[in-house]
Amino acid sequence: MTKPLRIALAGLGTVGGGVVKLLDTNAALIERRAGRSIEIVAISARDRTRDRGVDLSRYEWVDDATELSARDDIDAVVELIGGADGPALTLARTTLARGKAFVTANKAMVAHHGLELAAAAEQANTALKYEAAVAGGIPVIKGLREGAAANVIGHVYGILNGTCNYILTTMEKEGRDFAEVLGEAQALGYAEADPSFDIDGVDAAHKLSILSTLAFGTEIDFASVAITGIRHVIAADIAEAAAMGFRVRLVGFAEESRKGLFQRVHPCLVPLDHPLAHVSGSLNAVVAEGNFVGRLFFEGRGAGEGPTASAVVADLIDIARGEYGPAFAMPVTSLARPGAAAAGERRGRVYLRFTVADRPGVLAEITAAMRDAGVSIGSMIQRGAQGDGHVLLAFVTHVCPERAVGDALDRLEGSQSIVGKPMLMHILDV
Amino acid sequence: MTKPLRIALAGLGTVGGGVVKLLDTNAALIERRAGRSIEIVAISARDRTRDRGVDLSRYEWVDDATELSARDDIDAVVELIGGADGPALTLARTTLARGKAFVTANKAMVAHHGLELAAAAEQANTALKYEAAVAGGIPVIKGLREGAAANVIGHVYGILNGTCNYILTTMEKEGRDFAEVLGEAQALGYAEADPSFDIDGVDAAHKLSILSTLAFGTEIDFASVAITGIRHVIAADIAEAAAMGFRVRLVGFAEESRKGLFQRVHPCLVPLDHPLAHVSGSLNAVVAEGNFVGRLFFEGRGAGEGPTASAVVADLIDIARGEYGPAFAMPVTSLARPGAAAAGERRGRVYLRFTVADRPGVLAEITAAMRDAGVSIGSMIQRGAQGDGHVLLAFVTHVCPERAVGDALDRLEGSQSIVGKPMLMHILDV
Repeated sequence: MTKPLRIALAGLGTVGGGVVKLLDTNAALIERRAGRSIEIVAISARDRTRDRGVDLSRYEWVDDATELSARDDIDAVVELIGGADGPALTLARTTLARGKAFVTANKAMVAHHGLELAAAAEQANTALKYEAAVAGGIPVIKGLREGAAANVIGHVYGILNGTCNYILTTMEKEGRDFAEVLGEAQALGYAEADPSFDIDGVDAAHKLSILSTLAFGTEIDFASVAITGIRHVIAADIAEAAAMGFRVRLVGFAEESRKGLFQRVHPCLVPLDHPLAHVSGSLNAVVAEGNFVGRLFFEGRGAGEGPTASAVVADLIDIARGEYGPAFAMPVTSLARPGAAAAGERRGRVYLRFTVADRPGVLAEITAAMRDAGVSIGSMIQRGAQGDGHVLLAFVTHVCPERAVGDALDRLEGSQSIVGKPMLMHILDV
Repeated sequence: MTKPLRIALAGLGTVGGGVVKLLDTNAALIERRAGRSIEIVAISARDRTRDRGVDLSRYEWVDDATELSARDDIDAVVELIGGADGPALTLARTTLARGKAFVTANKAMVAHHGLELAAAAEQANTALKYEAAVAGGIPVIKGLREGAAANVIGHVYGILNGTCNYILTTMEKEGRDFAEVLGEAQALGYAEADPSFDIDGVDAAHKLSILSTLAFGTEIDFASVAITGIRHVIAADIAEAAAMGFRVRLVGFAEESRKGLFQRVHPCLVPLDHPLAHVSGSLNAVVAEGNFVGRLFFEGRGAGEGPTASAVVADLIDIARGEYGPAFAMPVTSLARPGAAAAGERRGRVYLRFTVADRPGVLAEITAAMRDAGVSIGSMIQRGAQGDGHVLLAFVTHVCPERAVGDALDRLEGSQSIVGKPMLMHILDV
């Protein structure tokens, strides 16, 4: 009989508890699939007394997670502590330095320190695995690293944050405004008490930077992701987008071309015939477009106890099987250094929404600015005076340089007719 | 520098040509990703003179494909000949017996001889890979074997035949009848001259039996797949289904429960809120439902030169990386022997369509038979006399045992009012 894979768990929040439950519930099947059993030897977390709904007394409790990496009776450490730095990073470094496999769900740490850790894993000839860090239970790391490996990938993009998608699709269904739906999502536990990592797009950007590396063979470049969150999307934007044949989604989008690597997280208008338009609630989805395979679309649950545990244990099964290799599909030294492409060079259609005073000449002022900047209008909706006496103007442009749209908005800066900041969203035309 | 992976290609049809093109076009990236180059050493096909649009003079031509397996300068053989038996099977056996890796896109051979071949690969400690055999470019073999490996899978199902999906969605869009759309698909090269493997569901059944094995850890059991094709779907079925909130898709569906393994390929009514309802044209899609991950949905191009080549080369990259293991996720001896579950035991909703003579009492006759069999009606549409003077009656039942529906149809056998065979389709309620 082959020896068990002996693991340690550091961090016993929702996901850690899920990993324990999964390894219990599916033990027999996992042993058949992995060719050996996966056994938890030791665990570590901040609070020993908290009830996690699973029997943890079977495992040795270790107060200092770092000790786990030093033990000879542990083959792999699973890090579910979180945070880009601090104890998680220390544990990753010490575990890999000791030549033990390391599995993590920590997108922030991988986005910030992934290259260093991958190099350490290569040096020690061990595994660094992070399927759970992107899109929860969807095997998209594997899908890019292996499934689409034969392809030059042109774009990779998707709905990478379930909290934002829940908020946007609830706003869409119920016609309600952002703040109200966010509050409700917090009450239901779908959004964090401090939701900024999610709703400001940082979490999606962490994930996008990881996907880019796998898709394009470039070094992780989180710093160059342009990030816009969903705070400024109003119910009317979603309604007008719908009237013009679109749905609003927070999309992380990355593209590599001769101009360099372009990465952006932003609320987008997605045409109804695009599969991302049909991703609703807290689901995640990722699209990769390869030069031979065409469009691949993956959808599933992007967070939560079960899906995340599923991804963590899939990584452990790969390790138990001995089926693993370089964390980012190729040795770190083979990754290219990306040059960041400027957004202004890009061309596309955009949605522009203005809230304006209800008086003569406003439409002329705005359309003149667009004309002078070289922005041509594809469709336009004007909604008469709202409750507050303001009028809403929504445009979808024809394809034009992004720079021209910026120019049009600059020309309108300081206009006496425009109330508040105009809303700009790009159209996902891929 | 690591040695190249030296391969031979047997069969140079559309997919074989695609593999050559892909390895040419993406050579540099593949070498970075695989850690070494993948080099074609020798090729074999029936017709040496045919122009395949790629330069084949660089490779050694071998007339008898079986010779490829004996050569010391070849590490892996790619079989693209096709056919469950014959030269493809001989090549598989001799290649694996020689301890060389074997990659195939041949679903018929894997469905019929997969266990024998997997056992041979295990014995020789080499790879048997077949990603291209199911759903073309979508990495669904990998998705089940590895990505969802931590889960007990309850169901696996999907749209596994692009030709049928093209025909059904074209009928849906254009309101045209089966024979007409099939003829056009043949003219366009989307359907074979002899389309029976596709439209009668055999191709989808081959693929389904392979997915079942990966999902449930049971031996391949192609023989017990119940198969109904799409020949008898008429435009009116698609229209009435749409009127009741469904789309018609050919679905391969497999489920494992205490009652055993249930596998069926059949045209289904898919509710509009199910992702399979939005899979159109020649796309393929697969859904797996795991006890921790929930629903995973994969969509992409299921056939054709580029997607199939993408899957073949992904397998080669796994081999070049040394990241492979048992073909069906576990050793063949660990697979359980499935007991086939009887359809009659199942419960579900069904769609029933009758073409009837336009005379009094017909509706009473049919509804009485349904009542007497214990089939309760959820919704019903009657369309007045068609051009041929017949009336169309379409029902969707409430949930009932499949046996009861069979009973109702038995009671109506020989009715003087019913014209032709009634149409029965199940509702995909998962």
